[in-house]
Amino acid sequence: MIVVMAPTANQEQLNHVVALVEEMGLKSHIIVGTNRTVVAAVGDKRGVDKGALENLPGVEKIVPILSPYKVASTEVKQEKTIVRLLPYGPALGGKKLGVIAGPCSVEDRNQLLDLAGQLKEAGAVGLRGGAFKPRTSPYSFQGLAEKGLEYLAEAREQTGLAVVTEVLTVTQVDLVAKYADVLQVGARNMQNFMLLKAIGEQPKPVLLKRGMSATMEEFLLAAEYIINAGNSNVILCERGIRTFEEYCRNTLALSLIPAIKHVSHLPIIVDPTHGTGHAYLVEPMSMAAIAAGADGLIIEVHPDPEHALTDAAQQIDVGTFKQLMARAGRVAAAIDRAI
Amino acid sequence: MIVVMAPTANQEQLNHVVALVEEMGLKSHIIVGTNRTVVAAVGDKRGVDKGALENLPGVEKIVPILSPYKVASTEVKQEKTIVRLLPYGPALGGKKLGVIAGPCSVEDRNQLLDLAGQLKEAGAVGLRGGAFKPRTSPYSFQGLAEKGLEYLAEAREQTGLAVVTEVLTVTQVDLVAKYADVLQVGARNMQNFMLLKAIGEQPKPVLLKRGMSATMEEFLLAAEYIINAGNSNVILCERGIRTFEEYCRNTLALSLIPAIKHVSHLPIIVDPTHGTGHAYLVEPMSMAAIAAGADGLIIEVHPDPEHALTDAAQQIDVGTFKQLMARAGRVAAAIDRAI
Amino acid sequence: MIVVMAPTANQEQLNHVVALVEEMGLKSHIIVGTNRTVVAAVGDKRGVDKGALENLPGVEKIVPILSPYKVASTEVKQEKTIVRLLPYGPALGGKKLGVIAGPCSVEDRNQLLDLAGQLKEAGAVGLRGGAFKPRTSPYSFQGLAEKGLEYLAEAREQTGLAVVTEVLTVTQVDLVAKYADVLQVGARNMQNFMLLKAIGEQPKPVLLKRGMSATMEEFLLAAEYIINAGNSNVILCERGIRTFEEYCRNTLALSLIPAIKHVSHLPIIVDPTHGTGHAYLVEPMSMAAIAAGADGLIIEVHPDPEHALTDAAQQIDVGTFKQLMARAGRVAAAIDRAI
Amino acid sequence: MIVVMAPTANQEQLNHVVALVEEMGLKSHIIVGTNRTVVAAVGDKRGVDKGALENLPGVEKIVPILSPYKVASTEVKQEKTIVRLLPYGPALGGKKLGVIAGPCSVEDRNQLLDLAGQLKEAGAVGLRGGAFKPRTSPYSFQGLAEKGLEYLAEAREQTGLAVVTEVLTVTQVDLVAKYADVLQVGARNMQNFMLLKAIGEQPKPVLLKRGMSATMEEFLLAAEYIINAGNSNVILCERGIRTFEEYCRNTLALSLIPAIKHVSHLPIIVDPTHGTGHAYLVEPMSMAAIAAGADGLIIEVHPDPEHALTDAAQQIDVGTFKQLMARAGRVAAAIDRAI
Repeated sequence: MIVVMAPTANQEQLNHVVALVEEMGLKSHIIVGTNRTVVAAVGDKRGVDKGALENLPGVEKIVPILSPYKVASTEVKQEKTIVRLLPYGPALGGKKLGVIAGPCSVEDRNQLLDLAGQLKEAGAVGLRGGAFKPRTSPYSFQGLAEKGLEYLAEAREQTGLAVVTEVLTVTQVDLVAKYADVLQVGARNMQNFMLLKAIGEQPKPVLLKRGMSATMEEFLLAAEYIINAGNSNVILCERGIRTFEEYCRNTLALSLIPAIKHVSHLPIIVDPTHGTGHAYLVEPMSMAAIAAGADGLIIEVHPDPEHALTDAAQQIDVGTFKQLMARAGRVAAAIDRAI
Repeated sequence: MIVVMAPTANQEQLNHVVALVEEMGLKSHIIVGTNRTVVAAVGDKRGVDKGALENLPGVEKIVPILSPYKVASTEVKQEKTIVRLLPYGPALGGKKLGVIAGPCSVEDRNQLLDLAGQLKEAGAVGLRGGAFKPRTSPYSFQGLAEKGLEYLAEAREQTGLAVVTEVLTVTQVDLVAKYADVLQVGARNMQNFMLLKAIGEQPKPVLLKRGMSATMEEFLLAAEYIINAGNSNVILCERGIRTFEEYCRNTLALSLIPAIKHVSHLPIIVDPTHGTGHAYLVEPMSMAAIAAGADGLIIEVHPDPEHALTDAAQQIDVGTFKQLMARAGRVAAAIDRAI
Repeated sequence: MIVVMAPTANQEQLNHVVALVEEMGLKSHIIVGTNRTVVAAVGDKRGVDKGALENLPGVEKIVPILSPYKVASTEVKQEKTIVRLLPYGPALGGKKLGVIAGPCSVEDRNQLLDLAGQLKEAGAVGLRGGAFKPRTSPYSFQGLAEKGLEYLAEAREQTGLAVVTEVLTVTQVDLVAKYADVLQVGARNMQNFMLLKAIGEQPKPVLLKRGMSATMEEFLLAAEYIINAGNSNVILCERGIRTFEEYCRNTLALSLIPAIKHVSHLPIIVDPTHGTGHAYLVEPMSMAAIAAGADGLIIEVHPDPEHALTDAAQQIDVGTFKQLMARAGRVAAAIDRAI
Repeated sequence: MIVVMAPTANQEQLNHVVALVEEMGLKSHIIVGTNRTVVAAVGDKRGVDKGALENLPGVEKIVPILSPYKVASTEVKQEKTIVRLLPYGPALGGKKLGVIAGPCSVEDRNQLLDLAGQLKEAGAVGLRGGAFKPRTSPYSFQGLAEKGLEYLAEAREQTGLAVVTEVLTVTQVDLVAKYADVLQVGARNMQNFMLLKAIGEQPKPVLLKRGMSATMEEFLLAAEYIINAGNSNVILCERGIRTFEEYCRNTLALSLIPAIKHVSHLPIIVDPTHGTGHAYLVEPMSMAAIAAGADGLIIEVHPDPEHALTDAAQQIDVGTFKQLMARAGRVAAAIDRAI
């Protein structure tokens, strides 16, 4: 970390900064520049709150040098992490991409089983579907709960698709882990640190969605929470950020993909459904995500979108999904990958 | 809700829209305009997912008319809600403002008790302090847990200040409610719907912080979750939103205050500490919040900010707080309120 | 437009709204709903300021139905606009994509001529390069001015590449139009309406960059300014928007591409250089832009980025550009297009 | 500036960085830390593009130390700049605040003269009014042009109010300067560098509005353009930034006021009209702006808002303005200032 002194700072103020830096267990190097004196504080003390320095008299600002995340970064682990969705099953993070598809909510047993068969046939490797629905409005459909999990598990038995479903709170972790293959942490829970810890203490892989206004740093720190709790099978998922744009529900920030690959070893997939909020944008943004280097996609598909109980505006139908998968294979091949 | 048909839409597509609108239990009115035909769907079905209409062939867009929130709005309750922090104690939402102050984290018993006495003397009505610290980094100080709650309760006994502290997860609700007077839902948990429900099922007042990228609508819907679970003593709190601005940690959106007062009966206070992220901005933004009509403030105060274990860059010291309170009283008086 | 009356509105207030609607030359339809009465105002009066209605007593809000843009929309013109960069030369907007490349600034004659030859060979159809540099800091290199334009024109003579360069102000339009083939309006000038008008009054094609916080609607309205002034050869360019993200200079909003194609007939290209701000992100985001359906790219390429006078952090070198072009061809083919 | 080397960087890469730093005319200090080696580049070369360093092999990132602005900062000039709106007339930047008021557009001579008299009486010191209207839509009213300027000048003669009006392009500078007392640069032109230069070359004071997504740094750099061109009478104006918030047209970022006062000597006022976009928010946000330390306000007032030709949703009427001024005086007094 670098402490930048104000041009008006005096010697006593500089001494005080140096004293506090050393009290923190760091070494200090003073550099006297043309316009500013700076104090470089050297040492690895990620747990110390260095904000204190900012408020000392004579300090203009502090500039961090180290990223706050560590085990999620390539600094600690160079080789890419490959996460298997099922034991001996499909993996994310390697040359081959994986597509997870399914309805926003599990609504009905037969509908789900039938859909799962078609998704598998179209090339999906995972089945998504919400059993507990964290809807913004308390007046909306809230999900089938455990019944929904049972149907998902049944669909896995029939199709071999890995079940990916969301856990909303600490007390649900065991229940969901009993049925699902991959536990999803939703965007709204990305900084629900108690949940991250609980989910990190169980062994199944985790799909961690980026919060809708989370920075890359915060996203990787959330992943570290899970890894530090004991589970290193974390799949990151970009799902759009909140901006001023009005033609879409969220702005899909695809540049996050190459940026994450630059600093982290974790796989990253893209959710073009929530990332746009409109069915007609799902196909082009899926192609773009693959071309940007995503390790997979997670897409909402409904057999009859106009009667979907949730997220009706953004789910695509099965025919559109089949077409999307065909094109996705071609785009993946163009960048020397496969689906 | 208004369904706007595309200029190219044909009669069959229009009929299909009308059919789906009626299937949803709504009445339809067709208006043929100069450039567009629109279908007004009339009826109060807030639980129906109208997104389905957006994807029908021939539909250009749908435009909602009703806000999704209801019990938080003045439509249902005109008179302002006044929330007492303690039985027979200070209240928020009336002519008199209330200031809640205290350290970011509870760090030490004596330090807390001593500080609480000074805050009370300076005019605070509530004592804040985190026992469980939801820090972004897993490497940082995580709080004193139940010990911290005990110290807070002890400070209340000594000073009469109402204890306001954060609940992080469903399983902590009972524990925190045992010690605290007001349960805080943090910004990162604003859409943790399981927590909102659990906290709504206990009787103590709730301080609900706005998520850092939540819209006003989502904020009020989160309040509705709590109210619908049985607890109508909800205090809203603006704590800054995430924008591109770089001189502050968050952008304090003070216009939310008059906007909330325009549509809702709930009291709203402001957190200038997290809302700016820098100690030097706390005092001017406190004055601005009061002038904008806030019903109170919640401010981080630490006896020795440069040695604070958390949030050291943004906590003010006791002397600064006293000065702030003196000025706050004058600004409140200027708009015919008091502290 | 729909005027939504407050639940407390009385008959007199409703009458006043109707009167003002009719005074504006619009017809009014009253719909009495379950919770709200709304007044639909019918007619095509895009020039009338309907904001007035918002402030009438008893009005809750107004909801626009028509987009404010018209000639840029598919409503007025269904077939795609194809813009030729040079008479009888390469075009943007058809099946074939076009790539425009070149240095941030024109720095030196020989350097530019040599670079242009290599870009042409690698498959570019246009040569970009700034002669007047609208730098944020007044202390930075400000460009070669007319000399720069001469070098660009010379490069066109030698290579056949179309010259694309920025016009900063009304008084430069004639000068730039004398040398360039395509006149660029920079992001910072997207709402410089005097410049849009002046540039629309000359016949050469226009490359219009999206302002860094412009909505799609504002972007298309800026295009309309140019079209209405007489020039319909407008190429749109997405170049990233300003968000809270910190790993990139701007967030490239690729979903704008399919959204624009949904509502407008104008071609749209992408600038992955300014759209990310970091050289290492340019190649993956170029692939993503093509996969999302962009009609072309505009990329900063410098023969020696580490000695570039401007934008040194984001320019790629010639070797990287050649590789990018090879990959771009494959991705374009995968979605049935070509470069 | 600090160059942070990647953990994998080798000696040769470090040498290359040092060589380039010295080639830039800067001195280098190498600090070997626990996790990173950093190179501090010392010297005042604000005109050099240091971005080049970011792309060198082995470099992780570069971290600037100096702000890019200089003459606008307190580093160069400690005492506050006080700008007189008229020779021997009212000033902004001192203890006394100034309020500028008037219609969005000049629409009619008598209406303007009558309004100006009332504004003066209510305590305004300046009269605003657009003669050239840079409307987003080409279909809207575009202003009275020079006639509008004449009416404004006439109003000044009658009332003594300083005339503040916008200049849209370089070619209008002389014309507007002939009639107006203060030349306004609109938010959309904040980075129209040619206009900043031209306006800096004439002697009348300048009101510079912040671009709707400009950082504080960019805002101050725009001010420097004007100052460096020869005119140091610059008044800054916060007018709201673009965010995801939906209840307001812009989010008024009042914390910019104390932040600007922290780093700059220039006066700063607030535009609560554009800063919110809704008439009902103007009064509370005016009070908040004053309490936050603003040196003045600029407010749209119209004698008959429901018939205003532009910005009808956000203009307040004369009665509301009078009330606002009375309250403003009380809030100013509460922080030891006056109006």
